[in-house]
Amino acid sequence: MKLYSYYISSCSWRVRTVLNYKNIKYEYIAIDIRNEKIKHSDEYTKISKTNRVPILELPNGDKIGESMAICEYLEEKYPDNPLYPKNLEDKAKIRNFCEIINSGMQPLQNIFVAKRTPYPKEWCKYWNEFGFKILERELVAISGKYCFGNEITMADVFLHPQVNNGYRFGADMEQFPTVLKINDNLKLIKEFDLAKPENQPDYPKKL
Amino acid sequence: MKLYSYYISSCSWRVRTVLNYKNIKYEYIAIDIRNEKIKHSDEYTKISKTNRVPILELPNGDKIGESMAICEYLEEKYPDNPLYPKNLEDKAKIRNFCEIINSGMQPLQNIFVAKRTPYPKEWCKYWNEFGFKILERELVAISGKYCFGNEITMADVFLHPQVNNGYRFGADMEQFPTVLKINDNLKLIKEFDLAKPENQPDYPKKL
Repeated sequence: MKLYSYYISSCSWRVRTVLNYKNIKYEYIAIDIRNEKIKHSDEYTKISKTNRVPILELPNGDKIGESMAICEYLEEKYPDNPLYPKNLEDKAKIRNFCEIINSGMQPLQNIFVAKRTPYPKEWCKYWNEFGFKILERELVAISGKYCFGNEITMADVFLHPQVNNGYRFGADMEQFPTVLKINDNLKLIKEFDLAKPENQPDYPKKL
Repeated sequence: MKLYSYYISSCSWRVRTVLNYKNIKYEYIAIDIRNEKIKHSDEYTKISKTNRVPILELPNGDKIGESMAICEYLEEKYPDNPLYPKNLEDKAKIRNFCEIINSGMQPLQNIFVAKRTPYPKEWCKYWNEFGFKILERELVAISGKYCFGNEITMADVFLHPQVNNGYRFGADMEQFPTVLKINDNLKLIKEFDLAKPENQPDYPKKL
């Protein structure tokens, strides 16, 4: 299995976490998505329909894009170390949480979207704070050590990289103490730590 | 089951389609999401974490938000009239397609996002055309009568309301003949037709 990934991409980070959590070996292929020539090369256009990361290439050559679709695939294909509970209503609540991040936060604060506004920095900060307000309110109600009680779920896979985005984009994260408490707990999980940008082969030696 | 819905909301439309396609009876509760007082009322904040539609309220009182999470729940809970194939790789490709719309197009062209730019009309048109270019290229390669060959899938559930968004926001839809051909085929499906805005109880009698 091959993962086309960029170290700082929060969507790639989600997939790396799931791969680690399920002990799936994979080859890391770094794509510098900030480089327009590489992003829009004929070669990469053949791999990614959207010229974005992550893309998971399966042993049969199939290429799957969109982190949510990849995470769902991995969960179904490799049911050991599950990231969803069996109860369908609880599973739906976790997916609901993931989608608040996946469709309600990350796309809006994506740099290539923000660049199309006259105020990219404020834009990214705004949509992070907007989303974290919702997540904080929700986590106060439902969280334990992790997002949904004391078991690690897909919600944690999506939360952890987004907190990093919040800091990167200057969101005032101190407003969200429950988010930060859970995030601190997630940092201690080996599979989550191995997935962070600093541990990727394309992480710049000197930033 | 209760669906909190707004007639023109494309995300509500997706869920209405799945409910119809699976012959699930539900009570329609209209929420005028354009009215800030209703949207942010204490009453609606108790129902929707994000103050948005759609929300599916289950018979046990659980409330599920985010259309993708709701559609996945309905597919798993009511496996008759499936919207995904059994093969996990094909299923992943369909989810990949759905997410290009769900996280890559609709959130960007949502009016409450566009209003935060100085050029909301151009913004909505741009992100629709941006996304449809990707979808058209993909559909040329994989479509039959519907998005994925000749069987109706979740991809069709997501495509059909988005085409309506494209027209509403002034996208030049003639650039996307394969999208339009499939959309014409989908209009003929009874369950899709019943889900359209004009057939909802909150559709304004005179626009």
